Amino acid sequence: MPVVHVMVWKGFSNAAKKRVIEGMTRVFTDLGVPAEAVEVILHEIPKENWGVCGEQASERLKQVQTP
Amino acid sequence: MPVVHVMVWKGFSNAAKKRVIEGMTRVFTDLGVPAEAVEVILHEIPKENWGVCGEQASERLKQVQTP
Amino acid sequence: MPVVHVMVWKGFSNAAKKRVIEGMTRVFTDLGVPAEAVEVILHEIPKENWGVCGEQASERLKQVQTP
Amino acid sequence: MPVVHVMVWKGFSNAAKKRVIEGMTRVFTDLGVPAEAVEVILHEIPKENWGVCGEQASERLKQVQTP
Amino acid sequence: MPVVHVMVWKGFSNAAKKRVIEGMTRVFTDLGVPAEAVEVILHEIPKENWGVCGEQASERLKQVQTP
Amino acid sequence: MPVVHVMVWKGFSNAAKKRVIEGMTRVFTDLGVPAEAVEVILHEIPKENWGVCGEQASERLKQVQTP
Repeated sequence: MPVVHVMVWKGFSNAAKKRVIEGMTRVFTDLGVPAEAVEVILHEIPKENWGVCGEQASERLKQVQTP
Repeated sequence: MPVVHVMVWKGFSNAAKKRVIEGMTRVFTDLGVPAEAVEVILHEIPKENWGVCGEQASERLKQVQTP
Repeated sequence: MPVVHVMVWKGFSNAAKKRVIEGMTRVFTDLGVPAEAVEVILHEIPKENWGVCGEQASERLKQVQTP
Repeated sequence: MPVVHVMVWKGFSNAAKKRVIEGMTRVFTDLGVPAEAVEVILHEIPKENWGVCGEQASERLKQVQTP
Repeated sequence: MPVVHVMVWKGFSNAAKKRVIEGMTRVFTDLGVPAEAVEVILHEIPKENWGVCGEQASERLKQVQTP
Repeated sequence: MPVVHVMVWKGFSNAAKKRVIEGMTRVFTDLGVPAEAVEVILHEIPKENWGVCGEQASERLKQVQTP
């Protein structure tokens, strides 16, 4: 059943992607949902396409690293 | 940064909602993302609006419980 | 694989929901995707929450019927 | 062309919905996009289904009003 | 009215995209919805960004072809 | 609170992106929502992935410019 859409900044490492997919799935298996039923979809968004506080994250949060 | 949309069947208990929100947030804090940056949005979908294998979950998965 | 989110006006009949779920799934099975892999999620949106041309559909498209 | 999905807390007044739909559409008409091409879809989310900082908004932001 | 978001693996052929767009639209015209009202948006997701059963589809479903 | 997902055709200029982010945020600050609470996420969709009236926008709306 559950479908999870995760919006993150572009540039997540493959290791971070694996951890997000595993971790989100485990949240549901801990609730008794079978792992086969869980789909996790990562949407990588360029920082210039993400607005925070009315500004592009590429400007406002220039120094913040993507995991 | 991260925004997480979680689609589940209608009828999740409040305890299950809390666990989903906490668990999804922890996946990101474990990666070094501050908790304040994580938004989790639960979309509760009636089983008759969820299609699996070409059929409504309300028919095909009638006996499956929502956590 | 495919996950399909369908946004429609609130008030679709159960027969119309079935036809949407069957039809969307068949589009993929016709392409060789197994039916078990297809999830279709119907989001019913009240007409006052749907904006067309800068106006609520509940006003602008008052006379249009939902199937 | 543009389709805008707006996630807000449940309980927006009809006046606020109108202003969101008008305002979002005007952002695009100001860029030369015809109003007929703009669709705005408001998703109202109960505060207990919205997680901020690992907690339900219904608890963490109990006193914050919905416009 | 209807807006359809279709999430598929990256790499769909142009012919497959056309068939998805035509097929999804026909589901609604068969219900009496005018074709002009139907918008279909295809989101192509890299297999390493799609989690199934807690694993990346790029690993778990390595041998499965995209149509 | 609000999270806004904006689907547009690929190719928006950086100036247009800024205006969308500023404009959408202002719609909410005008309603009394603090700017810090508003997240705007732009999804750029290639025209061949956008179906209008059963056809790809890359064919049907070939001559329409992206702002």
